Amino acid sequence: MSCPEVTAEAVRVLKLISSKTDLNLDLASHDFGGAGIDNHGVPLPDSTLDACKSADAVLLGAVGGPKWGVGPVRPEQGLLKLRKELGLYANIRPANFASESLLAHSPLKPEIAKGTDIIVVRELIGGIYTATYSIPEIERITRVAAQCALAVDPPLAVHSVDKANVLATSRLWRKTVTALMEKEYPQLALDHHLVDSAAMLMVANPRKLNGVLVTENLFGDILSDESSVIPGSLGLLPSASLAGAPDANAIVMGLYEPYVSMLILHSRNKRLTANCPLFPSSIHGSAPDIAGKGFANPIGTILSAAMMLRYSLGKADAAELIERAVEKVLDGADKGGFDFRTRDLGGQRNTSEVGDKVLEVL
Amino acid sequence: MSCPEVTAEAVRVLKLISSKTDLNLDLASHDFGGAGIDNHGVPLPDSTLDACKSADAVLLGAVGGPKWGVGPVRPEQGLLKLRKELGLYANIRPANFASESLLAHSPLKPEIAKGTDIIVVRELIGGIYTATYSIPEIERITRVAAQCALAVDPPLAVHSVDKANVLATSRLWRKTVTALMEKEYPQLALDHHLVDSAAMLMVANPRKLNGVLVTENLFGDILSDESSVIPGSLGLLPSASLAGAPDANAIVMGLYEPYVSMLILHSRNKRLTANCPLFPSSIHGSAPDIAGKGFANPIGTILSAAMMLRYSLGKADAAELIERAVEKVLDGADKGGFDFRTRDLGGQRNTSEVGDKVLEVL
Ligand SMILES: CC(C)[C@H](C(=O)O)[C@@H](O)C(=O)O
Ligand SMILES: CC(C)[C@H](C(=O)O)[C@@H](O)C(=O)O
Repeated sequence: MSCPEVTAEAVRVLKLISSKTDLNLDLASHDFGGAGIDNHGVPLPDSTLDACKSADAVLLGAVGGPKWGVGPVRPEQGLLKLRKELGLYANIRPANFASESLLAHSPLKPEIAKGTDIIVVRELIGGIYTATYSIPEIERITRVAAQCALAVDPPLAVHSVDKANVLATSRLWRKTVTALMEKEYPQLALDHHLVDSAAMLMVANPRKLNGVLVTENLFGDILSDESSVIPGSLGLLPSASLAGAPDANAIVMGLYEPYVSMLILHSRNKRLTANCPLFPSSIHGSAPDIAGKGFANPIGTILSAAMMLRYSLGKADAAELIERAVEKVLDGADKGGFDFRTRDLGGQRNTSEVGDKVLEVL
Repeated sequence: MSCPEVTAEAVRVLKLISSKTDLNLDLASHDFGGAGIDNHGVPLPDSTLDACKSADAVLLGAVGGPKWGVGPVRPEQGLLKLRKELGLYANIRPANFASESLLAHSPLKPEIAKGTDIIVVRELIGGIYTATYSIPEIERITRVAAQCALAVDPPLAVHSVDKANVLATSRLWRKTVTALMEKEYPQLALDHHLVDSAAMLMVANPRKLNGVLVTENLFGDILSDESSVIPGSLGLLPSASLAGAPDANAIVMGLYEPYVSMLILHSRNKRLTANCPLFPSSIHGSAPDIAGKGFANPIGTILSAAMMLRYSLGKADAAELIERAVEKVLDGADKGGFDFRTRDLGGQRNTSEVGDKVLEVL
């Protein structure tokens, strides 16, 4: 947990929840990414890997920063290795409006953005990143997508994204997804999009992709990042990386992190950071690295902790409590009440003030 | 030329231009894509390939349609083969607002979209599509990007996009681009973006990518499609695929086509077409294939013809005349005058009415 302040807020939330329920939390903090390099010379020290392996779940702070960006040992190598070692093949990244108040912050027109509700399910340890896919690898990620679609009533549609008109591996992907869905989930609606079309549609008419969007590693990397800016404010969205399909009756090992860590990772590209604040209304030429400054928004991490309760700790009720509390806090901005915007989002709040508010509502 | 009506309008424009200048046009029409399959059994008949090889330039209508989508012989195979056979390694896709009146049609908020002016330069015959890159392949596409940047005064910034934190081929890309730019174009500004960051930024703050965005084949496929929806109306943007770097003093072989052909190609995915009109305000459950119905917008093709005059026929002045005429036509919508929107864009116009207007202004 190397982005101390946002993680600290999520931990406060988890502690409050455990004090009110039968949840017994045993929390430990370990060096990873940039902190791993500084203190152990590698982004994923053995002691951290061992601790993760024996844990029920991992909550990740930001893992990088411009400081470590250029060397041969890079923080993201730790992330790639951790995913592989823990078998975290299923990355779940929802992009939706936790509150309508966020419409004001979307780069899209409200009538285009409104109601966007896409769960990106990205295969996380194979694909173009390494080489290609085997049929079982495609089948298991398809099952994850199907389980996500079935988690709500009525079930969601499943959109599979590939580049089957050009790539052989995409043709295998499409064939395998289609066959498995017909055999095991005939009740679910399934369609196929080409990745370039999907990238267009995500901007032009994102509601058309509402439901579960399942895709391979590289396409998922691009499309989930693209989808994450629709709800307007980076740092407010959670993500989960799972070692199995989510299931109401089972518990899976998972790693949980907010989207904002991606931003910090990428800021290792100096020019990007220095010249390209992601949102015109934010950062305003301030220091590129927002971690450690006390003004990063903790909501993405708090929502990631909620996902952790749901998928890895069997506490769906507690997860919902947190999600509803966050929704109320975000709604406040709309109704002239509490403004959740931290300084990284162009607002005035500190990290802990937002955490305080979530705790208060809880 | 298998989307007869939009191509017909571009041909009318070209004929008018040649009647007024010393340009001598020798035009011939050949079957390709769907028409190739119907009439010759293959998407790129030998006769068409031979004609293209001996031509100075190729103007492409739409190449596909749902009719040919599912068979083993697919229209896009013809496109991939044609690119390869003609050595068209440089795809140039500008995404900008030909007129401020288009801001009303953008899915992005006006304050986000306004002033977006990105020229995507996509490597078109190598990369993840086939295998990987050689250094000379990366160098020549970098030169194309640099020439595009130098074509205006002051020159544009060059943004190179890769996934160097994960892919070895991207690390070669970044190294090669950096070295070549330092050696041959030290006067140009260069920065690097990761593809996932670029996909975000394109939506969140596209002006930050203003200039020339150079990238490999697959990333370019995705990012250029994403960029093409920012100016709001598909079918209004041109593209060029070149066999060399554009140069004021030289002429290069090129293939020119509007973006809308992509849309028609992708419509072979039946569900996508039936259920997913790209723009909420357009198509409205009408027939999925817009080609051949007389209501596709010809502006993308007319602007493609202008690019052809500039890059392949050495007539930059004539190209500018056309571009200014189109701008005036598009401006009309703003000023309560002529509305350029054809039925595919949610308007009332037919293809030929828009062509008439461009000719009138010319
Ligand atoms: C840091 C990088 C390796 C990582 C990825 O590409 O998977 C990141 O971009 C992400 O999306 O989690
Ligand atoms: C049809 C297809 C092969 C093509 C591509 O992927 O290059 C298209 O999507 C494009 O962008 O020109």
